[in-house]
Amino acid sequence: MRDFLPAEKARRERVLAVIRERYRAHGFDEIETPVVEDYGRLHSGMGGDNEKLSFSILKRGLEANDFVTSEGDVAALADLGLRFDLTVPLARFYATNRGDLPTVFRSIQMAPVWRAERPQKGRYRQFVQCDIDIIGDASARAEAELIVATLDTVDALGLEGASVRINDRRALDAMLDVFGFVADERPGVLITIDKLDKIGAEGIVAELRERGATFAAVDAFEAFMRRPQTLEYRPFGEGQIRKALPAGVPDDVIAHLVGIGEAVVAARGGEAPLVFDPFLVRGMGYYTGTIFELAHPSVNYSLGGGGRYDGMIGRFLGQDVPAVGFSIGFERIVDLLEEQTADATPALVLVHDKNVAVNQLIALKAELIREGMRVRVEQRTKNLNGLLTRARADGYSAFATVNSDTTRESLEIKQLG
Amino acid sequence: MRDFLPAEKARRERVLAVIRERYRAHGFDEIETPVVEDYGRLHSGMGGDNEKLSFSILKRGLEANDFVTSEGDVAALADLGLRFDLTVPLARFYATNRGDLPTVFRSIQMAPVWRAERPQKGRYRQFVQCDIDIIGDASARAEAELIVATLDTVDALGLEGASVRINDRRALDAMLDVFGFVADERPGVLITIDKLDKIGAEGIVAELRERGATFAAVDAFEAFMRRPQTLEYRPFGEGQIRKALPAGVPDDVIAHLVGIGEAVVAARGGEAPLVFDPFLVRGMGYYTGTIFELAHPSVNYSLGGGGRYDGMIGRFLGQDVPAVGFSIGFERIVDLLEEQTADATPALVLVHDKNVAVNQLIALKAELIREGMRVRVEQRTKNLNGLLTRARADGYSAFATVNSDTTRESLEIKQLG
Repeated sequence: MRDFLPAEKARRERVLAVIRERYRAHGFDEIETPVVEDYGRLHSGMGGDNEKLSFSILKRGLEANDFVTSEGDVAALADLGLRFDLTVPLARFYATNRGDLPTVFRSIQMAPVWRAERPQKGRYRQFVQCDIDIIGDASARAEAELIVATLDTVDALGLEGASVRINDRRALDAMLDVFGFVADERPGVLITIDKLDKIGAEGIVAELRERGATFAAVDAFEAFMRRPQTLEYRPFGEGQIRKALPAGVPDDVIAHLVGIGEAVVAARGGEAPLVFDPFLVRGMGYYTGTIFELAHPSVNYSLGGGGRYDGMIGRFLGQDVPAVGFSIGFERIVDLLEEQTADATPALVLVHDKNVAVNQLIALKAELIREGMRVRVEQRTKNLNGLLTRARADGYSAFATVNSDTTRESLEIKQLG
Repeated sequence: MRDFLPAEKARRERVLAVIRERYRAHGFDEIETPVVEDYGRLHSGMGGDNEKLSFSILKRGLEANDFVTSEGDVAALADLGLRFDLTVPLARFYATNRGDLPTVFRSIQMAPVWRAERPQKGRYRQFVQCDIDIIGDASARAEAELIVATLDTVDALGLEGASVRINDRRALDAMLDVFGFVADERPGVLITIDKLDKIGAEGIVAELRERGATFAAVDAFEAFMRRPQTLEYRPFGEGQIRKALPAGVPDDVIAHLVGIGEAVVAARGGEAPLVFDPFLVRGMGYYTGTIFELAHPSVNYSLGGGGRYDGMIGRFLGQDVPAVGFSIGFERIVDLLEEQTADATPALVLVHDKNVAVNQLIALKAELIREGMRVRVEQRTKNLNGLLTRARADGYSAFATVNSDTTRESLEIKQLG
């Protein structure tokens, strides 16, 4: 877990402000849930592998004997936990507050989550997720609204040229069925296919053989993967989707994908920056339909992703409600946007000698603040350059030196290189 | 712990944005520390009673035998905890990052903290604190900068007329010494004096008698409390401070208080909204000098407070560094500012019939967003008024109905009452 110093914190807050402003423009409304949720809710089987990575909070008022448990069962000692994603808490939130929400509810959540991962480069135990979700709309419009809002937001952050890889869990299921994988082996087969980017077609086939997957089905899948046509998906549309899939995928699944593409085109004009990818899997078990990932030409990893999870709300509400969400990888995006974007408010460092009277200095500072400036006061040190370099890193754009007879009128404001 | 629905969340974010903007204008820089700190650090005795209210996080990878502990010692099971305030983490942050911070470091922290309090009205287990602190400045200028920035921020929030009650722990100590309370009984006497607002002078005397405090000292203190002069503290300045204290309080303590007042006047002009209160105690054990509380005529409880804690950084750094902080009671202030402040962006609800084509609707929405509006799409329900009332509560200011032949040109935008 990380400390954020002033320059980095300011950058993160500016990125969050852009995301918030764009998502709100698209009719999404920000909500907030507690960082801590009931232990039982977090471990209800909907969080996949992330459940195992959750931090658990000790019950209060425990006494010596409470700790003695032959089973070593954490649930006996913990009643709360830190959320490991924003989707499970959203489902709980919706079930709790449904009566006060619009029929179709479009939520924004921008908040930290925690996972007890082994510390490694680029993985943090506390990190921010930015999710938008649409609850209560089963139509392709929901996916289109999420994709349009996300692309607009990424554009506003200066990452133009992003695209969305898209698939449907039902198309994957149908495809595996067509090839002859039996129902029981399909979850394992999907875990292997998910590694295509990393291990390639050859690696996939080897791993499927090792799994002992139905021999003829692996043959059929290999032949399908090696077809030259599968490499050409664009432009997005029915013809291309059908070409990228084996025969036998239900028409309504394809129509849903086509509908998303048409709506994205309607909103953005021109060609939809969508790429149909019949091998896109995404890890989470709760997806039931469309799945997607955000790609950008500058990096070879995804900058976000999401999908439809029509079954989850029902687990909390006792009544199924369609839901689909798109999560932006905030930490990855912040790392990409490394340059310091300019601060709108003029920011000034007043560098003063030791002999300047406190009240003269504080009155001058107050006057400059009233003029609309952001003002930091620092006593002159031997290393003036070091002082100014750090101030510039913190977003200060100008400085002025103050001695005992400096007034507002005589103050000389100089820009910092 | 609470869920925040769209209208409430938007209000909280607006208040946070005003506080952030004002504090930054005054030369403070925002930082962020992890929500979770080491168990040992949180329980190092600096958090006072709040340590007992902290949530502890179970070690990962525990097995059955790890739970069996004859002592019932939570520390054997927990290695982390949720922060219960922002001051202890700030001291730890400063010790970790000192080399990358300015000599005088002015920090902003706006973040949630957790306390395992019994749920009761107006007390939350997760709540936001907004702290500013100045580390590395022992002079009265530090207190003055905190007070000036806080009053300016409270003004910007529309809560004009706030004032700051101020005292000094060293003045309290000297006062108790003068009256004849022995050193051992003073901490207990302070706990009683802290209740003056609630139980009055009579209650104080009764409780001090019950404590068995030095009899003559209680007599002297009672006579002092009942002096008519002690009720008249303003205007703030040396004469008034001396009148409000018994003889024997060191001159340098009084000079520090006077210096704060003069600097606040220099920044704000006119009279400083400071009230010297010789009976102000504040609970935390770590205060070493000035203490203060933010008061507002509309409420009879404090809206924030703080003080000097010159000893705490040394506990982490091994070297004393002066520090003083002012914490705004964010939750109390949000509750006070109940009216919905207007949103700057024009916000429009598009109400459509079922027969409007998805792509027509989504293209219209995109066009309005490009024009700078915030746009929510909702299907018309029988109870149109209910729909519009909720939209207004969520900050939408206008609506328009869309049917199958509506274009941007024919769209009639109506203001929401």
